[in-house]
Amino acid sequence: MTSSVWHPNTQMKEWGTFDTISKGKGIWLIDSKGNKIIDAVGSMWCNVWGHSNPELVKAITNQSKKIQHSSMFNLTNDPVEKLAKNLIRISPGMNKVFYSDNGSSAMEIAIKIALQYWKNIGESKKTQIATIENGYHGDTFGAMSVGYVPEFFGKFKKQLFSTIQFPVPNKYRIPKGLTLTDYQNDCLEKMEKRFSKDNNIAAFIMESGAQMAGGVIIYPNDFQRKISKLCKKHGILFVLDEIATGFGRLGSMIQYKEQKSIPDIVAYGKMLTGGYLTMAATLSSKKIYDSFSGEFNQWKHLFHGHTYTGNPIAASVANQNILMYEKYDLIKKIQKTSKIFSQYYDDISAIDIVGDIRHKGMLMGIELVSDRKKKIPIKTKKSINKVFFEEGKKNGIYLRTLGNIVMLVPPLSIEENELESLLKKTIKTIQAAKSHII
Amino acid sequence: MTSSVWHPNTQMKEWGTFDTISKGKGIWLIDSKGNKIIDAVGSMWCNVWGHSNPELVKAITNQSKKIQHSSMFNLTNDPVEKLAKNLIRISPGMNKVFYSDNGSSAMEIAIKIALQYWKNIGESKKTQIATIENGYHGDTFGAMSVGYVPEFFGKFKKQLFSTIQFPVPNKYRIPKGLTLTDYQNDCLEKMEKRFSKDNNIAAFIMESGAQMAGGVIIYPNDFQRKISKLCKKHGILFVLDEIATGFGRLGSMIQYKEQKSIPDIVAYGKMLTGGYLTMAATLSSKKIYDSFSGEFNQWKHLFHGHTYTGNPIAASVANQNILMYEKYDLIKKIQKTSKIFSQYYDDISAIDIVGDIRHKGMLMGIELVSDRKKKIPIKTKKSINKVFFEEGKKNGIYLRTLGNIVMLVPPLSIEENELESLLKKTIKTIQAAKSHII
Repeated sequence: MTSSVWHPNTQMKEWGTFDTISKGKGIWLIDSKGNKIIDAVGSMWCNVWGHSNPELVKAITNQSKKIQHSSMFNLTNDPVEKLAKNLIRISPGMNKVFYSDNGSSAMEIAIKIALQYWKNIGESKKTQIATIENGYHGDTFGAMSVGYVPEFFGKFKKQLFSTIQFPVPNKYRIPKGLTLTDYQNDCLEKMEKRFSKDNNIAAFIMESGAQMAGGVIIYPNDFQRKISKLCKKHGILFVLDEIATGFGRLGSMIQYKEQKSIPDIVAYGKMLTGGYLTMAATLSSKKIYDSFSGEFNQWKHLFHGHTYTGNPIAASVANQNILMYEKYDLIKKIQKTSKIFSQYYDDISAIDIVGDIRHKGMLMGIELVSDRKKKIPIKTKKSINKVFFEEGKKNGIYLRTLGNIVMLVPPLSIEENELESLLKKTIKTIQAAKSHII
Repeated sequence: MTSSVWHPNTQMKEWGTFDTISKGKGIWLIDSKGNKIIDAVGSMWCNVWGHSNPELVKAITNQSKKIQHSSMFNLTNDPVEKLAKNLIRISPGMNKVFYSDNGSSAMEIAIKIALQYWKNIGESKKTQIATIENGYHGDTFGAMSVGYVPEFFGKFKKQLFSTIQFPVPNKYRIPKGLTLTDYQNDCLEKMEKRFSKDNNIAAFIMESGAQMAGGVIIYPNDFQRKISKLCKKHGILFVLDEIATGFGRLGSMIQYKEQKSIPDIVAYGKMLTGGYLTMAATLSSKKIYDSFSGEFNQWKHLFHGHTYTGNPIAASVANQNILMYEKYDLIKKIQKTSKIFSQYYDDISAIDIVGDIRHKGMLMGIELVSDRKKKIPIKTKKSINKVFFEEGKKNGIYLRTLGNIVMLVPPLSIEENELESLLKKTIKTIQAAKSHII
């Protein structure tokens, strides 16, 4: 029977049918025919403790028996209050938590807070948003505007608002004659130059630690910190997107702590609930929050609110998740496990279609090229993603590539031997996929 | 201890603290001190079966033990497949289901599908969106653009895309000298005139059955059907937002069936999961869906996808919810219960600050005015919402007003005697609130 589901970011004609996942246990996904595959992309970069973790499941079932949803409009509930305290506790400089239901919404809220802040304090000219090229912040119109990827969003350009974009130093594609340091300094100088003469910039928005969907560009040391300093110097709000990069993915619980760059506003999502239910959060500093305070009829408050904002079941599993990061010292474990990736650099690089390996924390992006010297992305007859999904499945792993980049984004708590097995299977998959290259 | 939560659509300074809801049972919310209040707004218009319904809770706990989340990127799962079939079965003219996490996102997806449809079939000029004044479709930038409420979203106007807006026939505020029929015809003529000469309109977007957050404007008979016919005649996609109005809220399972106006694209949310977990869906006709079909490198597919799209726990509770609509013949029950509202028209109208009562299905909006003849909205020192929340609480009901409109949007399955009690408490609350009017 034909499926009635329209899948995300998918050319449906290419697929026809999809494997049905019926069960999950640890790093394993089990389909309706009993086949087991390793969840190599952590169910789209969000899984922390593997599937069916009993402590997380218990958090869901326990809360489900008390109250399933009660509104944050005029009321509150214990799990969201506790979660807000947890998030504030681990997020230096942050003071309040605004809840939403997905990362795109969390970034839309960040943009609205940043724009309205200046209106609230009477600086009506500050209405521009600055960003970095290749940034990605989600698929809704505000998120597409600040994270404009032309090949994804060109069809909606007329409806997107314009931003000021700056280049990012991409280690793999350094302009001829420059060192990485030169390149980074060039990018920073462009910012400084513009910031010095443009008083209309309300906020600078970037992913924290690395650009993810825009091509896995891990920032050089000090890049993010220096931008945060420039923003502070020039009176521009510094807004970070840690949805995909925080909570241990890049090796630190809070990536902006590692980057020594405290933001005015930050968004979390994906791993917030351990990968079990959708929930996102936008946090702001006290300075920002206070500007929204006033008499009701001054209309300084934020007009934003989704029906299920602060859902207590999602908040309960998020609380249990954060508790377990601490109880099991997950970040320390990640830092150790992450070294396993490095041990496979040589074996992966030995495959002649591998152009570059980008690795940080529990993330590895392997960029595939048909010409190493010219760095030309590989091409396949079917989409690269479909080729790798099929070859990956034969080798027992679930893959979803990002264009010509093979992404390894496993559950954060994956054991060392499991990761070794995953890496070996990935190498086999890349080798097998070679026959599809045109 | 100060809360770390930033509440939605709330002037935080006015509130200070919020009551903590700890448990829920049927129409009752129970706070941490043991106080019981009737959920008169159905936890922001989404609750169907009351709180802690054992069949819905079981759907959550059962699925939670199998798999909590598996991705729709390259894979699928049984609950979402089943849900898509359920939704297609009850939605005439619809063919495919695109999942998301909240109503705003579902409308953003509807806009993107509508805009891209014309690009996919080579009609590159059709890039404008037409809407109705006072419409509301959510709080993200795309949703704010098509549902532009100036007092909510004026601060973000520079970042919103422009739309073509048409007036709506508001029964309570008919221009002098016109009948409602004249007024409606005027509105429709304006549309027809514009549609005839403007070939650039991609889609017409409206709420189905009534405008909700924009002031509870229930459309006159045939208004929606006639717009759908105009759209068809002039080659404009007809896009409906049933997030707040479908699934029985206005008395029909599918509001557009009652309105005899089959859309090209429709969005559902709020009541989809019975009010327990966040989930939304955008459905489209076969014609629309087919235009996205092609070879991968034609890039005709939709670039949209949230991490938790198609979450199996949310889908499981949604399936159980739809099953129960049929098992317990909920729509028939609603149509009977709805008559209880009518029995209280006289008693409510007798209060001298009541200007108008709008009622359809399981929704009542009571507009409060300080001058019945001039229809001037009441003013209170605190926000009207705060006044009514406090007075409502004293009378044992949870209220959230929409500006000067008291909203009664209870759980759909509320019993007749419970609704009678709620209406009596509402009357007492309005009378008590009179002392706050300035």
